Amino acid sequence: MNEVIERLITLIDEDLQNNIYTPEERNEIADKYKKLLPQDLIVLAQTNPISGNVKYNALKAQKWIEWANLIEAKAVIFPEMFLIGYPIGDFIDRFPIVVEECNEWLEVLAKLSGKTKVIIGFAEFNKEKKGKNYYNSAAVLADGKIETVVRKSLLPTYAEFNDYRHFEPSPVNSSSRITNIGSKRAGIVICEDGWNDFDFFDKNLYSTDPVEVVIKEQHPDFIVNCSSSITRAKKEQLKHNMLSFAAKKYKTPIVYVNQVGSGECLSFEGASRVYDENGTIIAMAKSYEEQFFIVDLNDKNGVIYQLPKGLEKTLNSQKAFSLDHEPDLERTYKTIIQSIRDYFRKTGFKRAVLGLSGGLDSTICAVLLADALGAENVFGISMPSIITSDESKNDAKTLAQNLGINFIEIPIKDMFDVTREKFDSLFSDMNNKWNCRYKNSYTNDNIQARARATILWGVANEFESCLSIATSDKSEVYMGYATINGDMSGGFAPIADVTKTKLFALARWLNENRKTKNAIPASIIEKRPGAELAINPETGKPLLAEEALMPYEFLDEVIWRVENLHQSINDMTDVEFLYEKKTSVSKEQKSQWLEKFFRRMSFAVYKWSILPPAPIVDARSVNNREYRHPIIASAINYRKTSFEEKFDLLKKYISR
Amino acid sequence: MNEVIERLITLIDEDLQNNIYTPEERNEIADKYKKLLPQDLIVLAQTNPISGNVKYNALKAQKWIEWANLIEAKAVIFPEMFLIGYPIGDFIDRFPIVVEECNEWLEVLAKLSGKTKVIIGFAEFNKEKKGKNYYNSAAVLADGKIETVVRKSLLPTYAEFNDYRHFEPSPVNSSSRITNIGSKRAGIVICEDGWNDFDFFDKNLYSTDPVEVVIKEQHPDFIVNCSSSITRAKKEQLKHNMLSFAAKKYKTPIVYVNQVGSGECLSFEGASRVYDENGTIIAMAKSYEEQFFIVDLNDKNGVIYQLPKGLEKTLNSQKAFSLDHEPDLERTYKTIIQSIRDYFRKTGFKRAVLGLSGGLDSTICAVLLADALGAENVFGISMPSIITSDESKNDAKTLAQNLGINFIEIPIKDMFDVTREKFDSLFSDMNNKWNCRYKNSYTNDNIQARARATILWGVANEFESCLSIATSDKSEVYMGYATINGDMSGGFAPIADVTKTKLFALARWLNENRKTKNAIPASIIEKRPGAELAINPETGKPLLAEEALMPYEFLDEVIWRVENLHQSINDMTDVEFLYEKKTSVSKEQKSQWLEKFFRRMSFAVYKWSILPPAPIVDARSVNNREYRHPIIASAINYRKTSFEEKFDLLKKYISR
Repeated sequence: MNEVIERLITLIDEDLQNNIYTPEERNEIADKYKKLLPQDLIVLAQTNPISGNVKYNALKAQKWIEWANLIEAKAVIFPEMFLIGYPIGDFIDRFPIVVEECNEWLEVLAKLSGKTKVIIGFAEFNKEKKGKNYYNSAAVLADGKIETVVRKSLLPTYAEFNDYRHFEPSPVNSSSRITNIGSKRAGIVICEDGWNDFDFFDKNLYSTDPVEVVIKEQHPDFIVNCSSSITRAKKEQLKHNMLSFAAKKYKTPIVYVNQVGSGECLSFEGASRVYDENGTIIAMAKSYEEQFFIVDLNDKNGVIYQLPKGLEKTLNSQKAFSLDHEPDLERTYKTIIQSIRDYFRKTGFKRAVLGLSGGLDSTICAVLLADALGAENVFGISMPSIITSDESKNDAKTLAQNLGINFIEIPIKDMFDVTREKFDSLFSDMNNKWNCRYKNSYTNDNIQARARATILWGVANEFESCLSIATSDKSEVYMGYATINGDMSGGFAPIADVTKTKLFALARWLNENRKTKNAIPASIIEKRPGAELAINPETGKPLLAEEALMPYEFLDEVIWRVENLHQSINDMTDVEFLYEKKTSVSKEQKSQWLEKFFRRMSFAVYKWSILPPAPIVDARSVNNREYRHPIIASAINYRKTSFEEKFDLLKKYISR
Repeated sequence: MNEVIERLITLIDEDLQNNIYTPEERNEIADKYKKLLPQDLIVLAQTNPISGNVKYNALKAQKWIEWANLIEAKAVIFPEMFLIGYPIGDFIDRFPIVVEECNEWLEVLAKLSGKTKVIIGFAEFNKEKKGKNYYNSAAVLADGKIETVVRKSLLPTYAEFNDYRHFEPSPVNSSSRITNIGSKRAGIVICEDGWNDFDFFDKNLYSTDPVEVVIKEQHPDFIVNCSSSITRAKKEQLKHNMLSFAAKKYKTPIVYVNQVGSGECLSFEGASRVYDENGTIIAMAKSYEEQFFIVDLNDKNGVIYQLPKGLEKTLNSQKAFSLDHEPDLERTYKTIIQSIRDYFRKTGFKRAVLGLSGGLDSTICAVLLADALGAENVFGISMPSIITSDESKNDAKTLAQNLGINFIEIPIKDMFDVTREKFDSLFSDMNNKWNCRYKNSYTNDNIQARARATILWGVANEFESCLSIATSDKSEVYMGYATINGDMSGGFAPIADVTKTKLFALARWLNENRKTKNAIPASIIEKRPGAELAINPETGKPLLAEEALMPYEFLDEVIWRVENLHQSINDMTDVEFLYEKKTSVSKEQKSQWLEKFFRRMSFAVYKWSILPPAPIVDARSVNNREYRHPIIASAINYRKTSFEEKFDLLKKYISR
């Protein structure tokens, strides 16, 4: 049976994406398969909307609905907020016309609905005198009408979520959440509504569990969860455990329909699925692809597509963190690819230009861009300065050849020289007024980075639909080790949420797992990273990043401890780092690195605020779409002080 | 009596800011004034905290508390969240050490507290198993102990607010909100708790009104509202009307203590005040200054300082909007001055460098910087290209002389030429691979803007504590009429929330109202704005901004309609603009401008996301600290479509 279902899914998916059949052929296909398949089919409409483009979303919904009607499915279920598109933004408050249009499109879709029930997320007006202007709702459409509307109760407002900012939380109203699908009664919840089990979590954000209320009051045959739930490190495992736990606890199957696609910095992985009453997965849609996913709930028939390797592993392991990052590489790769592709498609860009330094960051970016946009749409430009080594130049060229992307080399010595000469006279004149010139400045380093960005943005200005790419990585973003208007500048920053140690692992993984093996020259992976912007006076060679900062393995563990364990300087001083197990680190050295980390990070906050959009892939990030740190909060207390110190500090201003 | 109070306030303010008295002198002052003043004094501690710098805030609190003790005030009342600093950010979740320190500092302050009650805002841990991690609370300290803790009930999550993101809303718990102050009973609410009167507002965000509950259940003699409420156009009038309404409605005085100072993009104006039971202001602290503000609640004694002119006018007028912007200029000026000063002070910067083009934007920025930081800390650099007119060069120079700021001229022709030459060969090589070169591009214009930014950032890199300034204005930010890595780039953008028409009015106001009259050359105000980056082929002269965009008066009214009335294209087509009353505009022309506005705005969203921090001054803004528009939501529906159009669009995918 599952083979038949899979064949039909594949067939319809191809038609939905490429419009390959005539109306007659579609009817024939439907007739043929209806005979082979059981009666009570439902369709999980794993779809990729565009935020605020209601027309686009409605036209897409219609295609899914018509195919569901044709195969006489009992229901077709869309993700949370599908019709208006998610992530939502403040535009629904500033441009209520979008919500008006959304509600009219819903009426139009309702009028066109037939025997197949449609469950579809949308933004609904709250017409009461009290509360926010909108509800996050899902409508059930059938027989030309809106049968019922379900309103979300639990509104997440943390990390990437801002639901309570826009929506009024609804009481659970369990009876409004019930609809008949075929011979069964379904209870509908919306995303976060399903994330508050009191037995599963140690701490709960909300005092109600809508799943519990619906099941205890209405005894549905199964739960439908319409979601727009993003993928990030470690989240898949939590989600699986939680959904499986609830299905088993209530002896009630759960149908989980998730959005797919990326919206700016947020990526939805799809992988919609069905848990049976024992908490076992009986069907799971593809990851990172739209799908017309058919399930036979009665007889537990359903196809199980595999999760990307990282996810699969985390499903079965409790391994929390390792600097080699092995478990998460395929997911990271696919998430970024989807992000680039959808960012370009949804904003109208087609081509990308980036600087190829021969270093790890720009190398990984080039691979990801080539895979996401097609090699012909990527231009890598090598822009050597006098510090750039021949090895770096060769590596950049070899990489471009291996990837098949466009490549050109253009030295920046002339731009550097004219600027440097100008600066010499300017600064010495200015110094008469401002006697505060640094002895050692980063000015020369930055001239190079900015000349390169000027070239890249010039290309973006000159060629149609072309975007310049920022190649900064997460470790360097944390340390502010990136030049404003230089390497930090671009229209998209593909790897700004990937740490350096993970990039090394990813490079090896890419060489093993891409169709073209070993596209990344080994020398790029083997050499120690450096920006090649300055010479280290101690070595006489280009300054290495680890000399300017600290060992990447140490740095990345600090980042991990900050983001995941929320540790202070004191906490970190007291624990042994993985790096310390391999290399002897003196107490003073460790203390110096930790101080440097927090000092540099405090200053880097300013740079975070103007970082271009970057896909979120890690468990936590400093992406300003999810983490907001006021720039003026630069002197926050990262270190614990004792009561005694505090009393001492409070020297009496007025003695008594 | 009020003269005596005012003398004491002035005296203590000077001491608090400049530490001018010895302990003995302080005792003498206190003794002398205690005899002159009534017994039941309270102090409104109008103070400027630093977000997350708990130590700094605690040391400041202690100074205010000790002076209040010395004059034997019955209470000293601090703003909302004073001890941890507001605006708060996600750092309280990522670095809970800050909240731990905040709570320890509170204990230390409590131990040092004496007969004067201290009411002080702080972030409190929520130790329950359910809910968010923190409460937004105010503690009452007295006799060495924490007497009671009041928790905020209404948590705003709109525009600049994110309270519900971090805090658990508390039930009103009216008895916990009562404390004795002298012979009277005070009921404490925190900021938004006082913004939900069911009779005052047509629509309420919340279903409870804590003020009503506290008054009806506890019958306090007066209400204390600890606030951190930002200033923005039109808000002062609303706030005054609301507080006055509630005081009168309940025949209960309201003591409103507001934060002063700026935190990144948010500005708090102070102007703490007391309303009597008739809703009349009997005392009002200064705007934009810290103050030890003494009030005699029993006999209604209190000083009334004047609001900045804009605010005063809006208090007495219902004038909602006029393109001349007269009512709001002093407030706008003072808000931006405070923002610049606090941004620099709180982040550790001292000097500013900016390009002086001789145009309006950079001119206004130079004036504001000179007034905020001192003329000696500002460097204006004139960077003419071959397009720059002699008039512009002279205007820039004259302005700098008038302001007394540092000035230098350095032509960019050499940088432009070397880049242009490079681009010629690069682009023609690239065109072999990418046959999609624009016929008319902005590349040349942008080379100039980017060469200038390279110089400014070079200066910022080379001189100590120096920040480069972005001079973009709000009208141009809306239209994306600003160059990435060019004029849009900088560490702070002082006027990015001021429209062009308002800037013209502000220029005239500055010439009339600053100590040095007419510092801005008349020619700068009189000439029509243009970036001087390109020649208009039709006129043979530098392209004017209004030729590239649309008349500024029309543009600024569109912005106003979007931000304040949330109108769609259809709505705007149907109403008559002020501009249309003065100038005849054809239907086609208006339609073309409106289309251009929404098309350009959709594209500009991307630039908003990387705009440097800018002070919020207008009623609404696109500042990404308050308005979030996902970049991929570029194709949202700004135009209403009919049901018929929708049905037509839903062409059947599968014919039946």
